[in-house]
Amino acid sequence: MYHHIKKLMYTVNVGSPEPRFGNMLLEQFGGANGELAAAMQYSIQGLNCDDLDRKDLLMDIGTEELSHLEIVGTLARMHLKPMKKHRESAEADPLIAIAGGGGVGLFNSMGDAWTADYLKITGELDVDLRSNIAAEARAKIVYERLIGFCDDPGTKDALQFLMTREITHMKAFTAALESLGKDPFSIGNIPPTAGLVDEYFNDSTGAGDEGERDARGPWNEGGKWRVVESPELQRGVEGQSGKTTARTAKPVGEDTGKTRVKKSA
Amino acid sequence: MYHHIKKLMYTVNVGSPEPRFGNMLLEQFGGANGELAAAMQYSIQGLNCDDLDRKDLLMDIGTEELSHLEIVGTLARMHLKPMKKHRESAEADPLIAIAGGGGVGLFNSMGDAWTADYLKITGELDVDLRSNIAAEARAKIVYERLIGFCDDPGTKDALQFLMTREITHMKAFTAALESLGKDPFSIGNIPPTAGLVDEYFNDSTGAGDEGERDARGPWNEGGKWRVVESPELQRGVEGQSGKTTARTAKPVGEDTGKTRVKKSA
Amino acid sequence: MYHHIKKLMYTVNVGSPEPRFGNMLLEQFGGANGELAAAMQYSIQGLNCDDLDRKDLLMDIGTEELSHLEIVGTLARMHLKPMKKHRESAEADPLIAIAGGGGVGLFNSMGDAWTADYLKITGELDVDLRSNIAAEARAKIVYERLIGFCDDPGTKDALQFLMTREITHMKAFTAALESLGKDPFSIGNIPPTAGLVDEYFNDSTGAGDEGERDARGPWNEGGKWRVVESPELQRGVEGQSGKTTARTAKPVGEDTGKTRVKKSA
Amino acid sequence: MYHHIKKLMYTVNVGSPEPRFGNMLLEQFGGANGELAAAMQYSIQGLNCDDLDRKDLLMDIGTEELSHLEIVGTLARMHLKPMKKHRESAEADPLIAIAGGGGVGLFNSMGDAWTADYLKITGELDVDLRSNIAAEARAKIVYERLIGFCDDPGTKDALQFLMTREITHMKAFTAALESLGKDPFSIGNIPPTAGLVDEYFNDSTGAGDEGERDARGPWNEGGKWRVVESPELQRGVEGQSGKTTARTAKPVGEDTGKTRVKKSA
Amino acid sequence: MYHHIKKLMYTVNVGSPEPRFGNMLLEQFGGANGELAAAMQYSIQGLNCDDLDRKDLLMDIGTEELSHLEIVGTLARMHLKPMKKHRESAEADPLIAIAGGGGVGLFNSMGDAWTADYLKITGELDVDLRSNIAAEARAKIVYERLIGFCDDPGTKDALQFLMTREITHMKAFTAALESLGKDPFSIGNIPPTAGLVDEYFNDSTGAGDEGERDARGPWNEGGKWRVVESPELQRGVEGQSGKTTARTAKPVGEDTGKTRVKKSA
Amino acid sequence: MYHHIKKLMYTVNVGSPEPRFGNMLLEQFGGANGELAAAMQYSIQGLNCDDLDRKDLLMDIGTEELSHLEIVGTLARMHLKPMKKHRESAEADPLIAIAGGGGVGLFNSMGDAWTADYLKITGELDVDLRSNIAAEARAKIVYERLIGFCDDPGTKDALQFLMTREITHMKAFTAALESLGKDPFSIGNIPPTAGLVDEYFNDSTGAGDEGERDARGPWNEGGKWRVVESPELQRGVEGQSGKTTARTAKPVGEDTGKTRVKKSA
Repeated sequence: MYHHIKKLMYTVNVGSPEPRFGNMLLEQFGGANGELAAAMQYSIQGLNCDDLDRKDLLMDIGTEELSHLEIVGTLARMHLKPMKKHRESAEADPLIAIAGGGGVGLFNSMGDAWTADYLKITGELDVDLRSNIAAEARAKIVYERLIGFCDDPGTKDALQFLMTREITHMKAFTAALESLGKDPFSIGNIPPTAGLVDEYFNDSTGAGDEGERDARGPWNEGGKWRVVESPELQRGVEGQSGKTTARTAKPVGEDTGKTRVKKSA
Repeated sequence: MYHHIKKLMYTVNVGSPEPRFGNMLLEQFGGANGELAAAMQYSIQGLNCDDLDRKDLLMDIGTEELSHLEIVGTLARMHLKPMKKHRESAEADPLIAIAGGGGVGLFNSMGDAWTADYLKITGELDVDLRSNIAAEARAKIVYERLIGFCDDPGTKDALQFLMTREITHMKAFTAALESLGKDPFSIGNIPPTAGLVDEYFNDSTGAGDEGERDARGPWNEGGKWRVVESPELQRGVEGQSGKTTARTAKPVGEDTGKTRVKKSA
Repeated sequence: MYHHIKKLMYTVNVGSPEPRFGNMLLEQFGGANGELAAAMQYSIQGLNCDDLDRKDLLMDIGTEELSHLEIVGTLARMHLKPMKKHRESAEADPLIAIAGGGGVGLFNSMGDAWTADYLKITGELDVDLRSNIAAEARAKIVYERLIGFCDDPGTKDALQFLMTREITHMKAFTAALESLGKDPFSIGNIPPTAGLVDEYFNDSTGAGDEGERDARGPWNEGGKWRVVESPELQRGVEGQSGKTTARTAKPVGEDTGKTRVKKSA
Repeated sequence: MYHHIKKLMYTVNVGSPEPRFGNMLLEQFGGANGELAAAMQYSIQGLNCDDLDRKDLLMDIGTEELSHLEIVGTLARMHLKPMKKHRESAEADPLIAIAGGGGVGLFNSMGDAWTADYLKITGELDVDLRSNIAAEARAKIVYERLIGFCDDPGTKDALQFLMTREITHMKAFTAALESLGKDPFSIGNIPPTAGLVDEYFNDSTGAGDEGERDARGPWNEGGKWRVVESPELQRGVEGQSGKTTARTAKPVGEDTGKTRVKKSA
Repeated sequence: MYHHIKKLMYTVNVGSPEPRFGNMLLEQFGGANGELAAAMQYSIQGLNCDDLDRKDLLMDIGTEELSHLEIVGTLARMHLKPMKKHRESAEADPLIAIAGGGGVGLFNSMGDAWTADYLKITGELDVDLRSNIAAEARAKIVYERLIGFCDDPGTKDALQFLMTREITHMKAFTAALESLGKDPFSIGNIPPTAGLVDEYFNDSTGAGDEGERDARGPWNEGGKWRVVESPELQRGVEGQSGKTTARTAKPVGEDTGKTRVKKSA
Repeated sequence: MYHHIKKLMYTVNVGSPEPRFGNMLLEQFGGANGELAAAMQYSIQGLNCDDLDRKDLLMDIGTEELSHLEIVGTLARMHLKPMKKHRESAEADPLIAIAGGGGVGLFNSMGDAWTADYLKITGELDVDLRSNIAAEARAKIVYERLIGFCDDPGTKDALQFLMTREITHMKAFTAALESLGKDPFSIGNIPPTAGLVDEYFNDSTGAGDEGERDARGPWNEGGKWRVVESPELQRGVEGQSGKTTARTAKPVGEDTGKTRVKKSA
């Protein structure tokens, strides 16, 4: 598996440091969708992975994200540096200024310490790949927002570089998922209950006076979808005796009348 | 938007309570991929959503997940109840036994308090839908594992019901995402850097003696993919002067020789 | 128990959005004394409750608080919206701006993710009701402070509505506690040690030169109170042998002379 | 304010150490309702308090709780000590055994690090006193449960001592609250909205088939209470224009018909 | 062990309160290197300590740090007080202003709740003393930075007092460590593997073009040091059979050729 | 700086997997003193470091620790694998079993998610080196304890390898600190207050009846040490006027009489 990070892949240039923007950059250093989160999520999924081909993919991208951590950390550090000396700059992130001496730490823009609670690792390869596709989409939009709030050309270049790579990874993870050849809604081994799986529970109504809709779309009409209005099956409570009869799960709607179940056209 | 949870949708039956399994069930009550996480993720995405049709979808499913929280909480409580009296049962989860009096709390199976750090909410609809698809896949596999460790028929029925609904939601979110009609790799507004976006950085090598591979697959060959071996572009460091020249981002590989860049067939 | 949230109970109107105030509002969305904390505390207490009457009360109020979460979230979102576009607004809460795209998330005003550590759930009904009375008092004062920092009439109206409801709940919980008919200082089943329970340990002295007092009041004089000055009973340390003699707990003050024990008049 | 903890107030005796019970004891050392939480909550409230008499009370009890932290820590350490050497004991709390060398740390029974999120400190004296009354009630019930799971007489004695003191404190805080002479439902300065404050929103229904009730009691009938059935006032959504008309808050129920509002007898 | 904090040891004087500086001061109240962290780390180490002399030291300094918590809390409170009334002040720390009513809480400057994760307690006396020496050095530099950002003479005086005491403690802990008479690199009982312990793995290279060095210094040359260039021993992967042969650990470099191992002169 | 992790440095062999020991191993994977903590602490200190020689050292060791993360993760995974299938194994760590599918995650042995709160990074090189020396000492003792609870020879070999490297690092950091040539008690730039810095505050007394000592040792006698008994200087409280006179800090003991200040022989 042998990681290689021979050299950093990007030259960081910052024209004029801006502490408040440096603080924002921390979202991608120690934040929920940042580079450490990506690096750890993919590398640990890789460590747990028995599919050697996709394990290599997870390790490759995990390793690349780790190098991105260094890039974005360097960028942030350059923007945060004035905090070391200037009181007004320090107010942009007192934790970095007072406890960190103006250097970066594994915090987000609001000073929250990075936590592994950000990670999504299940040990089920196709599930993990879906988590990764979503993670890359999130990282992409975050970089886009940072670019939108940035004036420094060098910083924008670096962010464009990093943002681009997230799309690359998104493509790679998607290809890896598709190459598994699984049905997109087949997760694990136990099949869902037929019938129940195609019921859409309409738990909200459309009576609002300013545009709320009781919407219909491909997510609840067409194909096998059946809309079930405000499911009303009762639930039993724990019996006093502590003993209850085990009976077959009654899927919602099974015993419902016509008014409640509407077959989509 | 007007949520309706007129009644709970499922009758919970537990034959013989088993505290250690009740402890495991907490993963879906107060755990990272559990029902509160799902309910909050979708409802708050819905609260932030300007697309009224898909907002209704997010609210419908968020509301349903909240009712699932009650189902799984009831299940867990029934299994945990012996903790109230029996010391040996209490050892399965002392936090529930001592601090909670045998009742459920928003903790996972290891006693970690539920945290909003579990949630993925970006305010970008297609990105949020991808996060939701992944979240449903994770919840599905977790229910499957719980079923695998469970002997009680009534509990298994309930878990099968809940597991099935996750697939339903996965289908609905997928349909909603596809109905947006966006290119799957187009996130936000700023396009990625052409060329760079198609480069696969091969950050690991295949020289291991026990099967590690330097793998090739649709995630790095075919289409536009170019494999870049162990990227070695240098990075500049912050100049002493604090001033740096802003120059155009040089995508990795641009100036590399043939030995390092390999066009995929 | 069948929750009903047919419709939201309040119309939210915001005149001019103010991001820094929107940030403050997050205290009641994802903060320690906020609406999610209230909703979860009461609902889960209700889930664990065997007293069906008071369970209904807990569920009613838990459900109402959940609808308040939507109200305060809508308010906050309206105030935070400028963050989406404007850099200066974004600086008021970079986490919301960069990671959340200007939408609300389950964070407090300082960006801390909501945690179930905020909740007080013991599975002992009268104890839980006391926790709820205190929780409502805290929520009330927080709303009052928000009103004090707010200029927008529509927002103030909504906050007044929400603040009022906290008093309603405080009254209901108090009535429910009193209706249990328990002695206010009788908690659980094991009685406290007589004598010791009436001793007030005076662990601080009144020799300060700027007003510190060694105060007396109904909390340490009158009734059965006995003031014990700076308790000095020694404590044993763990014996080298690892074995110690079990002896009856000697309540502090039992063997103390007159100078240390002062019967309150 | 000058704290005095001249000597510990209780002699700890442990007959035979029991690591799994030592683990449970950590709930009162580093847990949510434990002695550090109490000590910090009261001391910091005291630090913020301008009422010098009750500040003395807060400091006295805060100081006493700190001495209890030492008692319960000593107890726990004695029970946990076998973890140092014995693998089976170590399995009862691997964090204490491996990272802590068998000594206590500020964790609860499930290894969660103590967090200030447990504390309730508002800087409003009467509110803080209510939080403290509830905190003492919780601590009392937790000690009672520990006693219920304990066989060692010396340990039980110590727990009885500590449990008793919680009732003492509960009495003192209650007396201090009452001595303020405030109306029990008057919090802060802004009065609640008349009328609305007396409405009980009945957000759940009584149609369950196994005993769920739509309960009535002193918390929603008698006095000024009015029960409002399933509130259905609509809420506006944010206008497209971003501008909304500020209008007076319409309390729920104001415009409802007779079927929905039921004056309690 | 009998703590004594008869009186606070320092008179706090604040000329003109400055809320943003008050916010910074919270780093030493509820922050990672603050006074509560110090007080708890030393006191709990002391509680676990069997060396009665050094236990007394740990308790003495732990107790002193607790009194410092009160000093720094009083300082912070005085600077934060304007938050109670003034909206602009409140924006410096909305959590303190809205939830805390302008009083201090156990948070750092970015609103993060204090957590026992800050503590380093191992139950191994010499190891704990090393952690304490480092902790005091950190606290010293944090006080120095606060002084650097402070204009108020009274506050600076107090900070100078507190900063000085950290050096005192650093000296005391160092003397206590040295008085144990242990070899500085002998930790616990199991000796490190000879040979391997003197190898310096050079995991980075010096080929950068802007000053990166592949540095040599007393940390990798002289004495017994051997520099091992980019260690390349292979690692086995888990066998398919699940069974692996246990063989003796082969220290890195053992089987490497001359080009990779360079004996320092 | 160019990290190189060409290959993993150690071959992991596990004879018979033991899930409960795998759970213990997580202390060094996702625990407070584990390999990720070490890797991140040193690498980020390195990122912030302007001393290029010691920056190289920090990066070298940070990189090595990252490879150790992979080693210990592989070890843990091999021991945890039975959790995937066997219910009894799963009970050793339900979080790993149910949510992680038997694979490792960034948790400690009690399921706590890794947090950057474990890290000590100040941006002051000599202070950081002290934190690192202490960190290595902690990691060493933790490995020793794991070895003590382990029966599998292959696992013990790997742990011995990892444990040895911690001593190597401890030596390297110590040499780097000494090579700075600073006085050991000179931290930062502001000198401590003369006189006050040499006072030892004796905040506990020696009157216990079971061995507590009011100890003397090189940490409070000899050299310049002066023991100050139970410091009793008064502290002022905040004046009503909010204004106070700034006066020079009066070090404790300055104005005390002879009975309280005892010059050490």
